[in-house]
Amino acid sequence: MVSVAIVYHSGFGHTKAQAEAVARGAKSVPGIAVDVIPADRAEGRLSDLAASDAIIFGAPTYMGSASAAMKRFMEATSKLWATQAWKDKIAAGFTNSASQSGDKLNTLVELAVFAAQHGMVWVGLDLLPGNNSSTGSTADLNRLGSSLGAMAQSNADQGPEHGPTASDLKTAEHFGRRVALAAAAWRRGRQEIAAALADEATALAA
Amino acid sequence: MVSVAIVYHSGFGHTKAQAEAVARGAKSVPGIAVDVIPADRAEGRLSDLAASDAIIFGAPTYMGSASAAMKRFMEATSKLWATQAWKDKIAAGFTNSASQSGDKLNTLVELAVFAAQHGMVWVGLDLLPGNNSSTGSTADLNRLGSSLGAMAQSNADQGPEHGPTASDLKTAEHFGRRVALAAAAWRRGRQEIAAALADEATALAA
Amino acid sequence: MVSVAIVYHSGFGHTKAQAEAVARGAKSVPGIAVDVIPADRAEGRLSDLAASDAIIFGAPTYMGSASAAMKRFMEATSKLWATQAWKDKIAAGFTNSASQSGDKLNTLVELAVFAAQHGMVWVGLDLLPGNNSSTGSTADLNRLGSSLGAMAQSNADQGPEHGPTASDLKTAEHFGRRVALAAAAWRRGRQEIAAALADEATALAA
Amino acid sequence: MVSVAIVYHSGFGHTKAQAEAVARGAKSVPGIAVDVIPADRAEGRLSDLAASDAIIFGAPTYMGSASAAMKRFMEATSKLWATQAWKDKIAAGFTNSASQSGDKLNTLVELAVFAAQHGMVWVGLDLLPGNNSSTGSTADLNRLGSSLGAMAQSNADQGPEHGPTASDLKTAEHFGRRVALAAAAWRRGRQEIAAALADEATALAA
Repeated sequence: MVSVAIVYHSGFGHTKAQAEAVARGAKSVPGIAVDVIPADRAEGRLSDLAASDAIIFGAPTYMGSASAAMKRFMEATSKLWATQAWKDKIAAGFTNSASQSGDKLNTLVELAVFAAQHGMVWVGLDLLPGNNSSTGSTADLNRLGSSLGAMAQSNADQGPEHGPTASDLKTAEHFGRRVALAAAAWRRGRQEIAAALADEATALAA
Repeated sequence: MVSVAIVYHSGFGHTKAQAEAVARGAKSVPGIAVDVIPADRAEGRLSDLAASDAIIFGAPTYMGSASAAMKRFMEATSKLWATQAWKDKIAAGFTNSASQSGDKLNTLVELAVFAAQHGMVWVGLDLLPGNNSSTGSTADLNRLGSSLGAMAQSNADQGPEHGPTASDLKTAEHFGRRVALAAAAWRRGRQEIAAALADEATALAA
Repeated sequence: MVSVAIVYHSGFGHTKAQAEAVARGAKSVPGIAVDVIPADRAEGRLSDLAASDAIIFGAPTYMGSASAAMKRFMEATSKLWATQAWKDKIAAGFTNSASQSGDKLNTLVELAVFAAQHGMVWVGLDLLPGNNSSTGSTADLNRLGSSLGAMAQSNADQGPEHGPTASDLKTAEHFGRRVALAAAAWRRGRQEIAAALADEATALAA
Repeated sequence: MVSVAIVYHSGFGHTKAQAEAVARGAKSVPGIAVDVIPADRAEGRLSDLAASDAIIFGAPTYMGSASAAMKRFMEATSKLWATQAWKDKIAAGFTNSASQSGDKLNTLVELAVFAAQHGMVWVGLDLLPGNNSSTGSTADLNRLGSSLGAMAQSNADQGPEHGPTASDLKTAEHFGRRVALAAAAWRRGRQEIAAALADEATALAA
């Protein structure tokens, strides 16, 4: 089994709904085990995270960057960073906020830089922008036009039963599936390359 | 007269329309002279820019950052940077692209960092996000929810006669007026503080 | 009196030392009152912050962005954001970490975007890069070559009595003075422009 | 053979030296073909780039972002973006400037966002920061403490025979090797996962 962990923080449930959609997408790939972990419990699950092939990080964008609750978890990983324990895992990120654009990109950059500090490999969204032409609509996949990760938008005055929109949840599903496939390919490929390099080393030593 | 220059690049006319809206807003402030300069002519206008109180930079977001034509102009200012000739001018930025969010924020950050290298003072947008609740619409001011500068969205398959939207152009006008008022206040205040410090120096020397 | 508040978080004392240097610089301007507030107490000081002319934000860069303790404070200001209570205050930022470059710029961008959400006006550093030529040294002002705010570097294995370096503290002092002067000019200028516009309105109404 | 292309712009030769070091590192992996392409020729080499497994982008940081010459190339790829022709290639980035930190991170973010628009998978640097403790020195690998890609620093008043420093060139070599290994693993793994999914589809259809 290839394992994908999703670590997220959600203040009001919108980002949780997005996380669950990412999980549905990841689970749609055969042979993938998915573990959805709220950020405040993730500190107690570091050994499980150490065993995962991919970690997808999700947080609402609050005041222009990832929520403090998510950042607290990120800081709790600094000991793992010091040994590069997460090196070469697959990483990805998603975020939700009430604005259409807002400063969501800043949160995705923050997550990507964090993953790079851990030596992880970053998988973005592989969907062209939707809702960017006269024939587009808010029902389009990737209607917000994100690239570094998955974005969702939820109205500020409505609960998670109304948002993120169906299109944003479908985008999140697509994204989860993409990351899971990447995790599977990456694990298989790394094992083979490691074996090939070991064979070559043996031959050289003989 | 307080002078505001707007240096912009526009590939297809959308960002030009946004620049003109910014100019209308700036001109609505009494006593403000506005100069709208395409990026490819701005290199020949460096002495005019040196005399301006504020420079507003605008560029389309192409492949995730400010257009190459805008970046060429930015590089042409490196000699001015070396003497900090633009130090303490007011700066601001705007951008247009086809996506709702896309990577427009990256362009605004790029422009803000550029202005900071010049020692300029950055004025962002002072509008709460629009279209972020169940009662919002795309007709709202700041419908994209930007903060660091003004964002506009234009459909990829339509010319500048169809986009940016009326709401984005009104947002740009509001933004131009804000920056012009800031330029006027900043110039007046700086002159007075300089005079006060000079008086104090004279008194100390006496 | 013009008032400058410095809100900072410091995990081990290095960023506190940087904050105190920023404060010394601000206090060197006649007529400036300076208030240095740790982030965990700043939530209880929101009315004082409301009365300040400028707020300078400082945080260590932890795992690639502002510390969680600082982010918690930033989120606590969301109610003020909703009324744009801090609109048109002067803002600025500084950060410290163990790496020479590291991802410190990401923290400064995070703080600048946060300030822009509040409608604040951002003042960066007005120093050309130091230590960037064959005649430069780590004793130069702005030895790290920052622009959007002030950066400092402190060794990971030493306490705040050894870092930030003397040059980084001098850079912080310079920065504090610059922001205080900007706050004074900005307040004076805004008052005069407001008065001028009011006079004009009265004349038009007469 | 697994192929790695390095597309770079260099104004004065420093970034070219960094690109060549990245190439040396990539070539050190058995079975890797490396193609080093200046940005101004890369537009004429788009079919070769289409055949590569990985593309590493390098540019000097000029006025806070990737050089205009590099940005021109990036824009020239917009037609490929429209068909996602580079989807699932490995991507990585490096940059050089005269400042120790400067705004180099902004260039790496710009390149990572660009790669994400193309649906590429981003590989960062897997080296803990050097020169960040009392026992560190400028001879350390990753002496600038970068994570999202490789950074180098070259004095502003010296040619490429004096910079980037030996440590920065070793860092670049390490980085090139890392990206080449990632490209090999990724290609192998993707082929196998594709075959496994095809087998499963056949079985389901039977």
